[in-house]
Parts: sequence; C-alpha cells; structure tokens
Amino acid sequence: MATPIPSHQRIVPGSVNLPPYPWPATAKDTSVDPVSIAESVTSKLNGYLSSGDFASISELFTDNGFWRDHLALSWTPRTIKTSAAIADYLSSSPTKLSSVQVDLTSEFRKPQIASFAPGGSPDVKGIAFYIKWGTSLGTGRGVARLVQEDGEWKIWTMFTCLVELKGWEEKVGARRELGVEHGKQEGRKNWRERREGEQEKGEGEVLVIGAGQSGLTIAARLKMLGVKTVVIDTNEKVGDNWRKRYHQLVLHDPVWYDHMPYLPFPEHWPVFTPKDKLAEWFEFYAKALELNIWTSTSLISSKWDEGTKTWEVKVNKGGREERVLRPKHIVLCTGHSGKKFMPDIKGLSEGVFKGLAVHSADFAGAKQQQEGTERKRKAVVVGACNSAHDICQDYYEKGYDVTMVQRSSTCVVSNKAALKVLLAVLYEEGGPPVEDSDIWLHGWPSEVMKSIQIDLARIQREMDRDLLEGLEKAGFRTDKGVDEGGLFMKYLQRGGGYYIDVGMSQLIIDRKVKVKQGEEIEELVENGLRFKDGEVLEADEIVFATGFMNMRTQARHILGDEVADRVDDVWGWDEEGEMRGIWKGSGHPGFWFHGGNLALTRYFSRVAALQIKARLEGLGA
Amino acid sequence: MATPIPSHQRIVPGSVNLPPYPWPATAKDTSVDPVSIAESVTSKLNGYLSSGDFASISELFTDNGFWRDHLALSWTPRTIKTSAAIADYLSSSPTKLSSVQVDLTSEFRKPQIASFAPGGSPDVKGIAFYIKWGTSLGTGRGVARLVQEDGEWKIWTMFTCLVELKGWEEKVGARRELGVEHGKQEGRKNWRERREGEQEKGEGEVLVIGAGQSGLTIAARLKMLGVKTVVIDTNEKVGDNWRKRYHQLVLHDPVWYDHMPYLPFPEHWPVFTPKDKLAEWFEFYAKALELNIWTSTSLISSKWDEGTKTWEVKVNKGGREERVLRPKHIVLCTGHSGKKFMPDIKGLSEGVFKGLAVHSADFAGAKQQQEGTERKRKAVVVGACNSAHDICQDYYEKGYDVTMVQRSSTCVVSNKAALKVLLAVLYEEGGPPVEDSDIWLHGWPSEVMKSIQIDLARIQREMDRDLLEGLEKAGFRTDKGVDEGGLFMKYLQRGGGYYIDVGMSQLIIDRKVKVKQGEEIEELVENGLRFKDGEVLEADEIVFATGFMNMRTQARHILGDEVADRVDDVWGWDEEGEMRGIWKGSGHPGFWFHGGNLALTRYFSRVAALQIKARLEGLGA
Repeated sequence: MATPIPSHQRIVPGSVNLPPYPWPATAKDTSVDPVSIAESVTSKLNGYLSSGDFASISELFTDNGFWRDHLALSWTPRTIKTSAAIADYLSSSPTKLSSVQVDLTSEFRKPQIASFAPGGSPDVKGIAFYIKWGTSLGTGRGVARLVQEDGEWKIWTMFTCLVELKGWEEKVGARRELGVEHGKQEGRKNWRERREGEQEKGEGEVLVIGAGQSGLTIAARLKMLGVKTVVIDTNEKVGDNWRKRYHQLVLHDPVWYDHMPYLPFPEHWPVFTPKDKLAEWFEFYAKALELNIWTSTSLISSKWDEGTKTWEVKVNKGGREERVLRPKHIVLCTGHSGKKFMPDIKGLSEGVFKGLAVHSADFAGAKQQQEGTERKRKAVVVGACNSAHDICQDYYEKGYDVTMVQRSSTCVVSNKAALKVLLAVLYEEGGPPVEDSDIWLHGWPSEVMKSIQIDLARIQREMDRDLLEGLEKAGFRTDKGVDEGGLFMKYLQRGGGYYIDVGMSQLIIDRKVKVKQGEEIEELVENGLRFKDGEVLEADEIVFATGFMNMRTQARHILGDEVADRVDDVWGWDEEGEMRGIWKGSGHPGFWFHGGNLALTRYFSRVAALQIKARLEGLGA
Repeated sequence: MATPIPSHQRIVPGSVNLPPYPWPATAKDTSVDPVSIAESVTSKLNGYLSSGDFASISELFTDNGFWRDHLALSWTPRTIKTSAAIADYLSSSPTKLSSVQVDLTSEFRKPQIASFAPGGSPDVKGIAFYIKWGTSLGTGRGVARLVQEDGEWKIWTMFTCLVELKGWEEKVGARRELGVEHGKQEGRKNWRERREGEQEKGEGEVLVIGAGQSGLTIAARLKMLGVKTVVIDTNEKVGDNWRKRYHQLVLHDPVWYDHMPYLPFPEHWPVFTPKDKLAEWFEFYAKALELNIWTSTSLISSKWDEGTKTWEVKVNKGGREERVLRPKHIVLCTGHSGKKFMPDIKGLSEGVFKGLAVHSADFAGAKQQQEGTERKRKAVVVGACNSAHDICQDYYEKGYDVTMVQRSSTCVVSNKAALKVLLAVLYEEGGPPVEDSDIWLHGWPSEVMKSIQIDLARIQREMDRDLLEGLEKAGFRTDKGVDEGGLFMKYLQRGGGYYIDVGMSQLIIDRKVKVKQGEEIEELVENGLRFKDGEVLEADEIVFATGFMNMRTQARHILGDEVADRVDDVWGWDEEGEMRGIWKGSGHPGFWFHGGNLALTRYFSRVAALQIKARLEGLGA
C-alpha cells in the first residue's frame, strides 16, 4: 500500500516535482572586475555563436548549467539543462542568436558580485548581469549568472526572453502614436467615434474570454503588437470579477508586485489594493489601453475548423444580440476564479441544511450582529487559505461565533515576512523597475528557484516563529510547502494552500476564532455539519472557501469536450520546470490559457502574446 | 492722441509689461569644476544664513540678480530683484532658510556648465544646479544659476520652491497608505463604503468650484496635504468640460508637457490627447486620487462671514437637493473656458441673422456635406486662434465654403517648432522628470524668461519661415508676440492670441480656407455679416471663437459683486513678474483663483494648495 502523500507535498496531479538544485560552490575570487569578466564571457559566446561552434559554447557553461529561453530561440518557453543539451538546443534552434551584449544601462543591470543563496549558508557568490540580444526576428533581454569552477568563470544560468518583434515594435515612448493626423482630411471621425466603432465592430484575430487581470493584460499586449482582439466577459462591468467577491477583500500582494503592463500604479497607490479600487483600475485600464471589451456577453457555441484554422464562435452580446466571431485564436482567461469548486458533500445539494450555505464567490459579506443578543449566530467556514481566513475575519468582526474547518494543513506567512523576505529587494519601495525584477525572477530555472525559496521560507519561518507556534498550539496545522519551499512553491506547484496573514492568525491564536482541524465532513445536517469523527458543528451560515475549478475543467465547461480533450493539463511544472499548458501552446491549435496573479499575468502576457503574434504572422511558430 | 497699442503688444489690462533682461556676460573660465564652485557658493550662503549676515549674502549675488521664491521664505510667491533687495527680503522673512544643499541625485540636477541664452548669440555660459533646502516649516527644491563677473562666480538667479510641509508630508512612495488596517476590528466598512460615505458627506475645509484640470489638480494637492475638500461642477460627468467642446478638438500641447500631478500619462499615451480621451483620464483621475466631486451641482448662493472667516455656500447637489457647505476657502477653477465671451455685435442678440450663430463652446461639429451639391454651405468663423483654426478645419473637411475672420494678428507656431524649439529639452521624449523641468522653467524670473523666449521665438520663426511667409501672402496676419517673445509670452501676458498649427495654416496658404482680415464686424445681417468696410460676408453658419471671459468676471457671475469687488485682477504680470491674482491670495480672504493649461495647473496647484494649508494650520500665512 502506497504511503499517502502528505498535504504539504501535494502538487497539481500529473505535474513534475523537480527537486531543489544543489547550490554550486562559491567563487574563490571575488575581488575581480565583474564587468570585464561578463564582457569576456559574452564576447566568447558571440564568437562561437557566429561561427556556429556549439561545442565551444557548451564549454562556457557548467556541466549542469541551464539556458532558460522564453522565445529567443524557439517559439515555446523552454528550460534546457546541462551544457551538452544547451549545445544541441542552440545548434537545432531555427532562430540564430546574435549580438549578446552586457547591459550597462543601470547600476542594477550592470555585472556585479552577487550572493545567489539568500540564506547565506552556504554563501554562493558569483557574478550576475543583465543582457540584451538580437536575432533576425526580434530583440530581447535576459540575465546571466556565472559561477567559478577551478578558477574559471562559467555560465551557470542563462536567460533570454523576447521583448520586441522586428517590424512590430510596441508603440510606446519614442514610438507612441501622434494622436492626431495633422492636416489630413480623413479626420471626419474623431477619436471617440473611431473607438466606439472599433469596439462595436469587434473584429478580432484573437478572442479573449474573461476580462480580469489575465484578459486585460493579454489584450493589452496583443494590442501593442497590432493584433486585433476582442475580449468578452459575462459581467456587466470590467472589474466585476473582483468587485463581486467578498466584502472585505483586499489584495494580499503588495502594489510593487502588482503593476500591470504599460500603466503602473502611481506613487500614492496603497500598498494593498481594496477589491473595488482594483475594479476601478481595471475599468480605466481597459479605456486607457483602448481595449475592445464586450461586457454582459456570453459564449453560446464554438467550433474549430481544422481546415481554415479558424474558430466560429457565437456569442450573446450584451444580452441583446447574437454575434458570430471568427478568430484565429481563443485565449481562455477565466482564471482560477472562474467556476467555483464545491466539494461533493452529502446533503449539500439536497438542501438538508436549513441555514445559508454558499461558496465564497457568492459570499456577500457578514451581517452586523447586535451586541448583547442572547444567542450569537454561528458561522462555519470550510477551507483554510486566503479567502477562508478573510471571511472568518469578517464574520468575527460582525459579532458571529466563528469556526474555521481546516481539513489538511496550510502554509502561513505573515504579511510582514511576505514583504520583507519573499518579495524584498525585487518588489519593494524604491526597488528596481518591475520589468528588471521580472527578468531577474523568471530568469531562474525552476530547480534553482526552489532552492532559493527553500532558503527564503526558512528565513520567513524564523521571522514568523511566534505566529506559527501560536497557531499550532491553537490547533491550526501549518506546513512548510512542497519540499519546504514555502508559499511561492505552493502557488506554482499546487495553485493554492497558503494564507498571507493579515490579522486572522492572531484571532485563531487568541481562540477568538475556533478551528476544527483534520477531519473530513461526512454530511450536512439540518443545523450544521457532521464530521467523519461524529462531531456535529452547529451553523447558521456555512461558507465553502474551497477554491475554484482548474482551468482545463473550465475549458470543458465553456468550450466543450472536443476542445478540452485536446488540451494539456494546466499548472504545475513540466519536466523542464516550465508551467504546463499555460502561456504556451495548449495542445489544441488556436487555443491558449492565460492566468495567474497580477504579477504572473504581467510577465507571461507578453510571452503568450508574442507566441500568438508569431503564429499569426507565420514566423515559424 | 495716443498711438494705439499694436495687437501683438496687447497684454491683459493693468498688468505690467516687464522688459526682457539684458543677457549677462559669458563666463571666461568654463573648464572649471562646476560641482566645487556650486558647493563653495552654497557653503558660503549657508554660513551667512546661519550667522544672519545678510549683507554678505547680497555680495554673493550679481547687482541685478534675482531670488524667486515660491513659499520658502514667505507665504506668497515673490520675485525679488537686486542684491540689496534680496538681503532685505531675507532679513525680514519670517521663516529662516537653512541647509541649502547642492542636489547631486541625478546628472540633470548636478552642477554643470550651461548655456543660458538659447539663441547662442550672445552665448551666455554659466553654472546651473538644482538645490534642496529646509526651514523649520518644510523642505523644498530649487535651482541656482551662476555667472562669472570679474573672475568671481556670483548668483545671478536663485529659485526656492516649497515642496513639503513638516508634519504633512505627502503620502506617496515610502509614506503611501497601507490600504488595509490589518487585524483591526474597525473594518466594518470596506473601502468602497468609506469612499462613498466621504463623497456623499462632502465635509470640506475647502470648496473647489469646477472639476477641469484646475479643480482636479488643486483637489489632488489638497488631498495629499490632508485637507478635506469638496469639488462641485455643473456638468453631469467629470471630464465634460473637455468632452462637450468641439468635435475635432485635440490638445495642442504634447503629452510630455501635460502630465497631471501624481498620475503621469503612461508610455503609450499619444503625443496629442483627443478631448474625449482626456475626459476619460479626468474621470479616472478623480477616482484614482479619491477626490470628492459632486457633479450636476450648481451654486445657489454664497456668503462670507468676516467674523468666523467662513463661507456659507448653498448648492443644488445633483439637481436633487439643497445642501449647505461651510468651507474656510473657496477656489474658483472655472478657468479660461468657463463663461463664453461673445462680442457685442449689432443684430446678434436680436436674431436678425437667419442661419446658425453659436459660440465655439457650443459648436457641436460641422455636418458632412454631400459632394456634388449645387451650392456649398458657407461657414464663417470669427476669431483666429487655436479654436477658430480647428473649427475652420472641421468645416473645410466636411465640405463647407469657409472663411476665417481675423480682426487683428495671430502668433503662429508650427506644431513641429513648438515641440522642437519651445518645449524641447525640458518637455520631450526621454526628457528629465517633469518635476525637474517645472523647477527649471519656473526657476527663471519672468524678465529672463522673456529674454529666453525672444531667442526661442526667433529660432522658431526661422524654422517656420515658409509657413509664416505663406500665411502673409494669403492675407493672414501673423505677429511675433509681446516684445517678440512669441507664443509663450502671449499666453502668460495676454492669455491668448496664438495658433499652434496642426494643419490649418496650409489650408489658408492654399486658399482652401479664406481669410477676411483686419476689419471689425459692423453688424449681423439676415444672410451673414457686414463689416465696417461695407463688405457683406454671406454665411449659413457663424461660429464665434472669441474666447472666454476673464476669471474676475467669472467670479462676479458666480459669486456676485461683493466678492468680485474685493478680488484683484487676474492674469498677466505684477511688477515682480509673478502672475496677478491667481495661485496666491486673491485680495478677498478665503478666496482663490486657480487655472491655466495642464502644465501650469500641475505646478501651481502645489503652490496654491500649500498656501491654503498654511492658512488653515495657522503657519503664519
């Protein structure tokens, strides 16, 4: 009989649990000039690239070195491991890399001695620097990290990501549009009329389903690439996907981590954005970026034509008219927060329970209870991650008797530690430009990222020691995440299972909110829930903060079996440590998944949009 | 009999026409280290400031040197000229300046050898550098320019502007709000409910009338200073002041010059913003800055109580209910574009003319004419500045027979020259941060600014030579502006009288749009206009692009004679070259004017808000 997988080790089924990468030895010489070493390595690389000497390129890397490539060398995100595989990859790549340059344009980007292991034990010193590069198709950026082996500086990790396609450079900065065609007589329509016409017409090479952060970011990126795009959303207003969530919701990630492409949050923006304020930002984002969004619009049917490589999609536009769209690509952006996931509990659908039972997505907020009322109303929240905590807190503040049902364990990180340990340096006040931070972060191969996160999680747990001990004493079970990689690994490998504490943990520690731990629910009964251990927990209201369906299931719901049967599983790592099924070909031609938190959608919206553009333009993708 | 003032020399009645400042001699030594010279001068200044040796301070300045001060040393904007007056001003200032530091935080701010005269003939080399300073009340920035006299480096112009008040530092960057009170139980209301409550309640120490760029910027600045403010506007929606203007309107100033405080336009924003796009930005600006704005709200009555120094203002809120506000201050922000100015022409009010006669503010846009129609409809536009040109262009593009009535002369600058000559270096792609540019620009005393503008206008006219000659040949009269200072001086000294060409001039040159030049209108007749020379110009439609009432007249309209009688004239220079009546005490306690283009409102909104805050807090203002 197989040992059951403990909760903290659970990952998305079918995904690969890559081990942490063993830290390389620290450099012996650190009083070197990092710029000249970086220039020397880069110059050798350029020489071998131009002569096609891939064997010599492999010599520049450590044996188990990495080249992570987001569309510089092929049209799908890849992480190539070992120097031998890198040589193969480069030699067989359809696009030839040229002119790799050390990026000296800012202090942060310049070559410098860096400590790669954040725990400092072992201290792994090496050289890190940003690069710029070009190919016949486009230009991009990246980051290289060197380590010293037997006195020689070798590339440990190389990262290349495509930023712009030649001929389709983004119209920003010096290439921004003029806004008016001076002296031209075509101006019979003004900007508003042109916008309204474009919006109503809805001509789209790409159809985006869902107008949350995923839909908005991919539509913005595609727009910048000159791709005609229509976004549909069943909600009445852009931003409703956040607006309609529970009353007290405030983002658990800070502003520095949350910027959206092209329109960063301003300097006065609060650290943690309240849901309605984010919704307003989304609404404006759509207007400022001039995205074509059809709200109150639902999908009626969709059909893929293998011959013409075109979809035929029928939608009900605005609840008023049926329209047919013929996009070449569909991007499903209904996210983690699309269809609710309700556990299959006996009595739930039968309506046995006499109180109010809802999914967290439908939780309208707790009602204020009068003080001194004889009997406190009882609330039970099933689930123990972010939403469950927020909802318990809301109930508690409104005067309820509250119990949280935690079935397994939760990775808890204090808000302070999340800011000071997990996001610090890259995403903080006065930190580097967010584009630089993203390149630094995604420039790590996933195995090394796991080693880093294990170190950071250790520091975080030390900082949160009192909190975590207090929770355990109060009967709440905490865990360290997959391979002790903490919150970030849980998010990437499992898609949930954590709480960023914004105050609820203390309420649990102080026994102000009770915890029912470790038991599965047997059934709903008239006055509450009965657990497998026989206990009955009385409840007037039950909220299931049990999360949302995975994206593939959503694709099935929205687009039917024919599509869903062809798409790959989504989320968690493939054998290279790239995310499965999302931000790259889904397995079904002309069909894409895009999603994630604000930070991931910021970065990966470009990765996905460039792939779509490359396919539309026939660039070998 | 006095010679009539030629049109190009006209300035706002009662304002002072300061002459251009004669360029000082160029520095003999330019291979010096500007940083050490700046440090040396600053260190001497600090020494004398701390010992109160004002006589020695005056020795640091050239005899006719300037200290322009925006609230460092007194609570009203001042420009002090001559070294002797500077010593007096410093010795009598209630606030003591201390710790003037050379700002070394960026290349642009660092001391450097600069050429002050943009024409280069004479070439006036000196040293320019940014400063930071503090007083007991606040901290600020500024810029100093040194020239060399007999081998000695002296301060020619000094500029100090207050940026932050101690104790009321703006909540931006590291001081931004958290957005959520973690773990606090007060959170019974969420952000949206708190915002809606605040907005509805309308508690205000300050009442702002008008929600265009002036109202928005002053409200934003006051909000950052923690001053409770309510903005009222008669329009239904924020942005309507632009939205409702003529169909083809696009800003004539470029995006780099137009940024609003705290929320700069993003990188993809078009160079010239269409009116409806700006309106959307305004709407969002109000939301993003969380300003309390009552739309569809008009003023019923206002009364100033000299005893309590409080206004009692009755308004009709939203067309539904009467509300009484009791602000300490009113800021009138109805701008240049508030009440229309219609010339008093015989026949106009009597309705003699059988066609359509409207003010440009009510011009809904020309109607497309069918090609091949036997008789072209005739449009006459009275006026020869920006709006008149845009409206003529619209008529022309829609197939009308168009005549522009130019009564005097117009300062014409091509769009290209405006960007490349007038705004370049400071406000262009990749230019310095806009706050730095503003300090550089407003750091010039007005007399020197005029000398600079005369040089720039000369370069501009050279660049625009063909255009200007072509216009003259076509019977359109151009001028060089007040003292040949071009567009910018016309704006500051006269408040109009220019056209930034976005294509119409070529239509005039090509005789596609006709010009009736130099004649006053005698009367409107049934089928058109009769001029004093007897000519009758036939018209089906007449648009009066004759501008808007001045701000004092508007104050009279809105607040009545009692207020208007006490306020000073507005716009144009006082004897120091500071603008009259606006962005400083108006003459009536608790009453302020704020206005101007986007760029002026950006900078002066802070100047005005700081004065209001100082008065509210009793900081000696």
